Amino acid sequence: MPCKILSDLGEKRLIQRILKKTKNIQYSSSFLNNKSLESLSDDAALLDFGENYLVATADMLFESKHFPKEMNPYQMGKKIVTVNVSDLAAMGAKPIGILISLGLPRDMKLKDFDSLIDGILNACFKYNTPLIGGDTNESDEITLSGTCLGVVEKDKVMMKNSADFEDVVAVTGSIGLAAAGFQYLFKNSDKIKISEEFKKKIIKHALEPEVPLKKAMELSKSGQVNSATDITDGLISEIGELVSSSSKNIGITIYQDKLPIPSEVFDIAQIVKEDPLNMALCYGEDFELLITVKKGKFEGLSENISLKEIGKVNSSGKIEIVYKDGKTNVITPRGYEHMGGAHEKRSNAI
Amino acid sequence: MPCKILSDLGEKRLIQRILKKTKNIQYSSSFLNNKSLESLSDDAALLDFGENYLVATADMLFESKHFPKEMNPYQMGKKIVTVNVSDLAAMGAKPIGILISLGLPRDMKLKDFDSLIDGILNACFKYNTPLIGGDTNESDEITLSGTCLGVVEKDKVMMKNSADFEDVVAVTGSIGLAAAGFQYLFKNSDKIKISEEFKKKIIKHALEPEVPLKKAMELSKSGQVNSATDITDGLISEIGELVSSSSKNIGITIYQDKLPIPSEVFDIAQIVKEDPLNMALCYGEDFELLITVKKGKFEGLSENISLKEIGKVNSSGKIEIVYKDGKTNVITPRGYEHMGGAHEKRSNAI
Repeated sequence: MPCKILSDLGEKRLIQRILKKTKNIQYSSSFLNNKSLESLSDDAALLDFGENYLVATADMLFESKHFPKEMNPYQMGKKIVTVNVSDLAAMGAKPIGILISLGLPRDMKLKDFDSLIDGILNACFKYNTPLIGGDTNESDEITLSGTCLGVVEKDKVMMKNSADFEDVVAVTGSIGLAAAGFQYLFKNSDKIKISEEFKKKIIKHALEPEVPLKKAMELSKSGQVNSATDITDGLISEIGELVSSSSKNIGITIYQDKLPIPSEVFDIAQIVKEDPLNMALCYGEDFELLITVKKGKFEGLSENISLKEIGKVNSSGKIEIVYKDGKTNVITPRGYEHMGGAHEKRSNAI
Repeated sequence: MPCKILSDLGEKRLIQRILKKTKNIQYSSSFLNNKSLESLSDDAALLDFGENYLVATADMLFESKHFPKEMNPYQMGKKIVTVNVSDLAAMGAKPIGILISLGLPRDMKLKDFDSLIDGILNACFKYNTPLIGGDTNESDEITLSGTCLGVVEKDKVMMKNSADFEDVVAVTGSIGLAAAGFQYLFKNSDKIKISEEFKKKIIKHALEPEVPLKKAMELSKSGQVNSATDITDGLISEIGELVSSSSKNIGITIYQDKLPIPSEVFDIAQIVKEDPLNMALCYGEDFELLITVKKGKFEGLSENISLKEIGKVNSSGKIEIVYKDGKTNVITPRGYEHMGGAHEKRSNAI
């Protein structure tokens, strides 16, 4: 029998393998508490700093795997900051600094290097997150590795695993625009006739996504959010994360007619002959937050913070979608795994 | 004129280019103070956490650039923790957690993956530094990116830039053993006849270096150390760092007869026909600390902590070595730069 290789397992099982080993080790540390252990499977890690948590997340991006050829160095620089800040936002943490290690080809043009750094610093400034450190190395392809640090008051942290029965499921913004942008870029875009304004909008969502950080801070401060994660791997995949990480036997039902899918997604779907619902639910890269709000608190909360209700937490143990015609379907989270899988997936679990 | 590429500049100038851009940005943050700005050029970054600094450092290692073919996955795992913990030790900070992002080939054997993780976790346990997060990705070669977090009381932090006139220059242990190990491995080792014990010792120094973390904590607590850095790029290069980062016009003189170069280094040097002094001063990878101790405090300090005095800080503005025969030479720090250079160099400056 040939020995097993990584692609036989896929990313999720590799992570589980690491977590299992990690959890066997006893450390003597006043910076770890029970929530720290729970956070190993969340968007970012929590360290106990008295009244606050220090929150830390790491994400690494490779040119050949994560950056479409349409992405310029400026956008790559923005992206490594964005993916890291997004994970902190999902925990309700305010970013306080980022470290970025760069692996760069020795024949990279200096002007591209300058653009990359400008992209990084532009995003750092936007999210008021100082670039405090890093490392530079020669490598065969552009490799960007970021670690973002943040703080959150202990009772305001938003975890993935704490959705409760009867919570309202909501998102912070529209879904599917990044997918529309990528479909436009990947599917022979010369033949797709759309207005310049429209094109600019969807491409920006695909290549220069932004994190709703201010909204995340407001949601955290409200104390009304039971659980949260960022929508980077597709809405259904993220809903699957909320369900599978919960210690209760929760289920989530979402309603097609409530999903905030902009008309641009339908337009592009028609042109490229894709299912718009599939684009909105499974593609990801939207960088909005998926949250569950305490029973009876959604209306008050959404008066001050723009949110879109899309479903409910229940005790079914399943993920269900109610279509416009009233029919209901049980859906399985589609994993977007790298190793042995079809599509990239980032994870902040170890 | 062809446009410039990265190898035309070299790593140091690229870092300076980033630092210049970074320092132009104004952030609104209570976590930054003057020392945070100074720390941009130090081994690790400092964030203001009241009575303490939160200390953070990042280091990334690529299989093709940083891991000799003699290194196994277990040793690679240990190394990514070691290089990061070493930078915290150099600041006098106690590590509290590490995040490690992995880029791994999809055809990597599962048993090699397990060894890599075991190496990481063994080092984490050794330094009581929990693995708290990370990321896994598919990549063409093994790519390990670490970020280590630590804490240090504000008045106990050891900076690179604060050596003072008349300080005693000292190291925490012997120098040159890693160089001896690498020379043995690289120079047709079958032909080099040495005892198994001897071989084991030098190879361990080369492939599984260790950080004198306990000693670093004691030095920091003593309050007698004016400046410190870790010896990863070679003693002379690190002395150059202390001199060039100081705001005073300091110089450093070291004495050949005081250098703690073990007999193994001379033995190997003779066999492989290298200059033993060159091996000890310029190779690096020793992972000991280079420190300067306040005037009049060295004797008391070295009664409790094993240290080796190697020289003095003066006002010459130069780096000088006094040879055994009494002759003196001015030396220039040899840069070990990647891009356009001959040898790897890690830096924690941005």
